[in-house]
Amino acid sequence: MGEFELDARLARDSELITVLGLCQLRLLNDSRWPWVMLVPQRAGISEIFELTPLDQALLTFETNTVAAALKKVTGAKKINIGALGNVVSQLHMHVIARFEGDPNWPGPIWGFGQAVPYASSQKQDFVKALVENL
Amino acid sequence: MGEFELDARLARDSELITVLGLCQLRLLNDSRWPWVMLVPQRAGISEIFELTPLDQALLTFETNTVAAALKKVTGAKKINIGALGNVVSQLHMHVIARFEGDPNWPGPIWGFGQAVPYASSQKQDFVKALVENL
Repeated sequence: MGEFELDARLARDSELITVLGLCQLRLLNDSRWPWVMLVPQRAGISEIFELTPLDQALLTFETNTVAAALKKVTGAKKINIGALGNVVSQLHMHVIARFEGDPNWPGPIWGFGQAVPYASSQKQDFVKALVENL
Repeated sequence: MGEFELDARLARDSELITVLGLCQLRLLNDSRWPWVMLVPQRAGISEIFELTPLDQALLTFETNTVAAALKKVTGAKKINIGALGNVVSQLHMHVIARFEGDPNWPGPIWGFGQAVPYASSQKQDFVKALVENL
């Protein structure tokens, strides 16, 4: 399998928040909806079922921990979780906080419009609050 | 919490394939992409992290088993997995087989166009093959 190396497009589109047990937790720079991504640090994996059973359990635990923290920190109406990977095949799990009236509610966020970058202080405040609640 | 009762909209939009340990496995009647759904038979749950840790592990196991079978049976390029629930809040996990050149590749399937119902024999063949591979 070789060593894990983050896909170049994921690296470009997101920034590292912290490393969990299995996954990198990364922030998407899109203030339309609080949006993070978990990337298991395993080489050559594009589907969840390709992970070992232990890694599948870790991914579940880490994803749900992040999802619960995201809900608490943002007060979101609904958390959306998805592993699509049609464009970037390296396995990555999206976790997004959704609100009634957000720019594409109740539709999906993927493929919708253009990202709206965070103001710097807004981004720092969000990341700090999220990490404190993990 | 009361007893589990399937949401009326989920019941209308899908049909039961089989019951797994935790979840109902249900077919969406949309031949544009092989699309099934797992619904944990637990009352009052809208987020994965609201399930007990054991149920979270079961959901993961069942979802990944279905995803692997769906990939094998369809030869899909990519399996998409998602728990959105912006419209129907009862927790349900989508598992979809995607192909290059399908009607919204590489975009998401949610909210895209109108379902194209299966021909009856096509539906039976797909369900049979899927169940045999679980």
